[in-house]
Amino acid sequence: MPQIFLNNIMIKTAIIGASGYSGAELIKILANHPKVEIKKLYGLSTVGEKISNIHKSLKGIFELTIEPFNNDDLDSIDLAFVALPSGQSMKIIPEIDKRGIKVIDLGGDYRLKNLDEFKKYYNLEHTSKELVEKAVYGLAEVNEENIKTAQLIANPGCYPTSIQLALFPVLKNDLVECSFISINSYSGTSGAGKSVSQSMIFSEVNESVRAYKIFNHQHIPEVKQYLKLFTSSEPNFTFVPHLLPVTRGIYTTVSLKLKSKISFNELSSVYEKEYSSKPFIRLYYSEVPELKDVVNTNFCDISWNVDENRNLILISTIDNLIKGAAGQAVQNMNLMFGLDQSTGLLKCTEKKW
Amino acid sequence: MPQIFLNNIMIKTAIIGASGYSGAELIKILANHPKVEIKKLYGLSTVGEKISNIHKSLKGIFELTIEPFNNDDLDSIDLAFVALPSGQSMKIIPEIDKRGIKVIDLGGDYRLKNLDEFKKYYNLEHTSKELVEKAVYGLAEVNEENIKTAQLIANPGCYPTSIQLALFPVLKNDLVECSFISINSYSGTSGAGKSVSQSMIFSEVNESVRAYKIFNHQHIPEVKQYLKLFTSSEPNFTFVPHLLPVTRGIYTTVSLKLKSKISFNELSSVYEKEYSSKPFIRLYYSEVPELKDVVNTNFCDISWNVDENRNLILISTIDNLIKGAAGQAVQNMNLMFGLDQSTGLLKCTEKKW
Amino acid sequence: MPQIFLNNIMIKTAIIGASGYSGAELIKILANHPKVEIKKLYGLSTVGEKISNIHKSLKGIFELTIEPFNNDDLDSIDLAFVALPSGQSMKIIPEIDKRGIKVIDLGGDYRLKNLDEFKKYYNLEHTSKELVEKAVYGLAEVNEENIKTAQLIANPGCYPTSIQLALFPVLKNDLVECSFISINSYSGTSGAGKSVSQSMIFSEVNESVRAYKIFNHQHIPEVKQYLKLFTSSEPNFTFVPHLLPVTRGIYTTVSLKLKSKISFNELSSVYEKEYSSKPFIRLYYSEVPELKDVVNTNFCDISWNVDENRNLILISTIDNLIKGAAGQAVQNMNLMFGLDQSTGLLKCTEKKW
Amino acid sequence: MPQIFLNNIMIKTAIIGASGYSGAELIKILANHPKVEIKKLYGLSTVGEKISNIHKSLKGIFELTIEPFNNDDLDSIDLAFVALPSGQSMKIIPEIDKRGIKVIDLGGDYRLKNLDEFKKYYNLEHTSKELVEKAVYGLAEVNEENIKTAQLIANPGCYPTSIQLALFPVLKNDLVECSFISINSYSGTSGAGKSVSQSMIFSEVNESVRAYKIFNHQHIPEVKQYLKLFTSSEPNFTFVPHLLPVTRGIYTTVSLKLKSKISFNELSSVYEKEYSSKPFIRLYYSEVPELKDVVNTNFCDISWNVDENRNLILISTIDNLIKGAAGQAVQNMNLMFGLDQSTGLLKCTEKKW
Repeated sequence: MPQIFLNNIMIKTAIIGASGYSGAELIKILANHPKVEIKKLYGLSTVGEKISNIHKSLKGIFELTIEPFNNDDLDSIDLAFVALPSGQSMKIIPEIDKRGIKVIDLGGDYRLKNLDEFKKYYNLEHTSKELVEKAVYGLAEVNEENIKTAQLIANPGCYPTSIQLALFPVLKNDLVECSFISINSYSGTSGAGKSVSQSMIFSEVNESVRAYKIFNHQHIPEVKQYLKLFTSSEPNFTFVPHLLPVTRGIYTTVSLKLKSKISFNELSSVYEKEYSSKPFIRLYYSEVPELKDVVNTNFCDISWNVDENRNLILISTIDNLIKGAAGQAVQNMNLMFGLDQSTGLLKCTEKKW
Repeated sequence: MPQIFLNNIMIKTAIIGASGYSGAELIKILANHPKVEIKKLYGLSTVGEKISNIHKSLKGIFELTIEPFNNDDLDSIDLAFVALPSGQSMKIIPEIDKRGIKVIDLGGDYRLKNLDEFKKYYNLEHTSKELVEKAVYGLAEVNEENIKTAQLIANPGCYPTSIQLALFPVLKNDLVECSFISINSYSGTSGAGKSVSQSMIFSEVNESVRAYKIFNHQHIPEVKQYLKLFTSSEPNFTFVPHLLPVTRGIYTTVSLKLKSKISFNELSSVYEKEYSSKPFIRLYYSEVPELKDVVNTNFCDISWNVDENRNLILISTIDNLIKGAAGQAVQNMNLMFGLDQSTGLLKCTEKKW
Repeated sequence: MPQIFLNNIMIKTAIIGASGYSGAELIKILANHPKVEIKKLYGLSTVGEKISNIHKSLKGIFELTIEPFNNDDLDSIDLAFVALPSGQSMKIIPEIDKRGIKVIDLGGDYRLKNLDEFKKYYNLEHTSKELVEKAVYGLAEVNEENIKTAQLIANPGCYPTSIQLALFPVLKNDLVECSFISINSYSGTSGAGKSVSQSMIFSEVNESVRAYKIFNHQHIPEVKQYLKLFTSSEPNFTFVPHLLPVTRGIYTTVSLKLKSKISFNELSSVYEKEYSSKPFIRLYYSEVPELKDVVNTNFCDISWNVDENRNLILISTIDNLIKGAAGQAVQNMNLMFGLDQSTGLLKCTEKKW
Repeated sequence: MPQIFLNNIMIKTAIIGASGYSGAELIKILANHPKVEIKKLYGLSTVGEKISNIHKSLKGIFELTIEPFNNDDLDSIDLAFVALPSGQSMKIIPEIDKRGIKVIDLGGDYRLKNLDEFKKYYNLEHTSKELVEKAVYGLAEVNEENIKTAQLIANPGCYPTSIQLALFPVLKNDLVECSFISINSYSGTSGAGKSVSQSMIFSEVNESVRAYKIFNHQHIPEVKQYLKLFTSSEPNFTFVPHLLPVTRGIYTTVSLKLKSKISFNELSSVYEKEYSSKPFIRLYYSEVPELKDVVNTNFCDISWNVDENRNLILISTIDNLIKGAAGQAVQNMNLMFGLDQSTGLLKCTEKKW
């Protein structure tokens, strides 16, 4: 049915929370998408402003005015993207869901099935528990079939996307000694959004690096929940996020010990088997990816290096605003509406180079 | 005897290899040191140039011309700093050593006692084996007594300095499960020196990050050699160095598992006991250091965070050109000549804040 | 005739000099262009390498191997883009031109009509004088009609593009006191290409700015030649290029005195009249453009501010690799082949915001 | 008398407004100054906090707690540095002045003699008019004798410092055609202080440049007032400040026309005559200064280039927080207390290189 539907008309979308950095990326991608119309932009503090006044790079290209959210508008909408701060989307999504409209939530409200973890890490009481089970985790490389039929997608967090895509093949194949996995990620500043705090001004971030939220970042339970699904045991891992003086991108370095000796070539087969048909995964083998080569794309570049002591180093890179947010959301939209998942996105057509 | 000597005259120094970034820092520190005179600057490709033409920040402040190295000049010298590329210092230092002149080598030629490792990681045949045993490793926080009486100092590498200072207290106290320690370091570009390659031009480094030399960085055997000394067992560790788009500084994040449950306060006591009298270590406890706060100083800032699963995250930060090179060399010089180790360097006078 | 031609087949292109930054941008734009095929990539020092190994962001997206230039290949080509260092294109273009193949030269060899100036500023003897007169200057906002019928396009320099687009309307309308115009431009490092020199390594460029080539930059005669065409008198101007610690973009600030008092609104009319139908000019009026808002686009954003003493400040911003090189080349190609000039490029569809 | 006084005791200072970036620099310089004690730190919103918690680089080095300002404390103080936002210092300084305590105001409240200009550009009613005339402008290279006997110093703005030092010699010698001088300055972000706004977050400043406050920056009347003093006529100039993606430093490029033909060597004599005895001016002749070479110093580096059409390009660079604020304030303090003006500051001892 979706395919038929698409032969005739465009997917009519609304963006709720258009004024953040993910919102801007979403507009840029959707405005060039051959099967999508952006019908409405909604916001809170920015109501009445032109979107091109908030994201000046949109001037002359895309000119809509931000409106206050109004449920009744939604009747003409096929899909709502929600890009609101934690705790805000769960106030709005139940109403949208009730009307049978598909939703992709770019925030964290529907990612965790365990609501105690939600409360602990987000410091919020969940007010839309009934939809939590219904929500489908939108990591298309792992969960494609469920996404195709989903009505509500919880779009993965940026760090979890880069971490899970690196670890999924080796965990799924039960190759990892799960007693200790070390994960270090380095993120550009756009991951912190446009919110204003002294610690984010240029003079404080430039020529510096800092770790933050050690042991209490809200992406830890998200990673934990899904790593567990990939493997038989529950891995013990540490995750240290760091802030980098770059605008965009996440660089994840995973260090772990393999259960038994595996050659580099065997590892390569594991990754090829899992990812050779995936249009947004680029396999770097032992070559180390550079962050800049994924910026402005929906790619996740992955490398693996192993030594004679069974130590394995995985590296993965993504653009936090695209594969870590807006691009992945569009990839999910494509799947939900029966399109090729790479429609409107640059894809990897060759797998060997 | 050194002290008496110092009441009367200044330490007369030469810098062999003054045109690199470490050389510039050395000049800046020594030019302000109350007990030092810089008598000679030696170089290779830059002979005949004014040093202020190479390091323009020195214009009007320090104006010496770089000379070709000449052993006979050395009779008037008390101490030679050698800041040459790998393989170059071992050609020169034996001659200097023979004359009874003290030497601090900022390069890697005398750091490794195991010459097979030297050959493997530096890809060079060692030509000064007899001095390798004599060389004293210049990590003053760990090796102060030996440094005081040394004639030849192997000044530690920048990464090993940040790594060993973070790990030393917990390894010495046998708290670490040594089967897997994950070490990730992020360095500014000045660590790569002034040598010119396409991969180091601004357009290639800016807005990017990249790991490099996974499993084969020449600092791996240096870390291995000294970690082993700190503890009973030989730790298995991974070390992944990364290049950051900042000019100066190293940010090291270590993830490991503790042998048994230890409280945060117990860990704090371990670090305090080891470092409370050390003038260049600043203990950050659970507060996370920021790279920019050690830039232009000889400090190493260290933090520790532990969770209920015995996972420990250590973070340490240094300025790679100062504590990781020139500042540490001056600290060693001070000890060798009977001075307070912080003479001419900004020190930490209070340990609680 | 070109339109008919295009209804049936694609424009077959070759890129000569594909391994530089402009080459990479050209590939990215052309690979997504609905009417273009890239048939051949030619290079010199990179022959035999896959282009995706040189520009790693192209991995999996565009995989061609660089070949040595061979005239005989050209028979199947409609258009050659030449992106070679100064002095190289004039060795190759006469042969291509002879075969009747259209050429867009992204370098400086055919921009100057005055060959004495060419010799003085490029320090080269011109070896293709007969084609100099034939070459059409590819600044489409000013020279569209000539471009449409050109066989050889001299694509403008990056600085001259930003300068001329800012000044053209006020000069054309004879509003400027031409005895002194001050032009200051600030460029990202990609303008210097991938060539390797110590002054371009990250540690030397980062946290710094520097002017360069005061009074002798090769873009000075190019600006002089075309400014003269815009106006009756020959303006006296100074041009100071500066290197900025950003990868992409040019920020040009022009200060001048108006001949007589003109209101801000009159000036606005002047700019609107000239540019309201131009798809890549965005008029900012008195609002100051930010460099980042044109990066990755073919736009030139322009603002004007005037005070009560007839002082006028013009600001213009472009992406040096796109509007200053590859994007402008594609805009010219579109015109040469009867396409809408914005085909394959993001264009500005609204002029008021 | 001051000299005698200094043989015995230290200058006892207080810093009012210690939590900003200039405050931090002031502390770093004064803490190493051989003739100064910092007795008190005062603040507003940060009362009760340790200064090392605000400027973490001071941890362990300088540990004082910020107190609420209290006039009665001042009896033990010889000199107060005031580093408060515009409009705040004029509320406090009259009280301090009344007690006969010397004051150096790093803000703009006492720089403009013309109070209409003050009102227009600062948008504030002046409430301490009687002290405006008394205040001495603290540009030591121009105004040294007045500074020596001053009780209240208006420390120059950062942009005016770089501009005036570049222009002073040629204006004083009446060489400039004053009908049009173009001044463009590029500043690091620390010039905007620690105040928090969305436009100053890293993601908005990085990889960008933007001009701001064209024709209405508060430093315009300051420059105008003092340029007039240097010359017979009132120069017409434009000043465009720009924000750069660097933390520290100001890069000023001045373009002007000379009244008559003057050779480069004659110009060099003009600059040498004025500045050869000044310890913080470094003359670069036709060599172009780089911003990074003045960062962390009190130097102003100046170059001049002239062409055959009487066009002159002047470039000057300073560290906005040091020569543009804290360092210049200490230079002024030294003069006020009979010390060598470079006491506690790195000075230029040679003038030829």
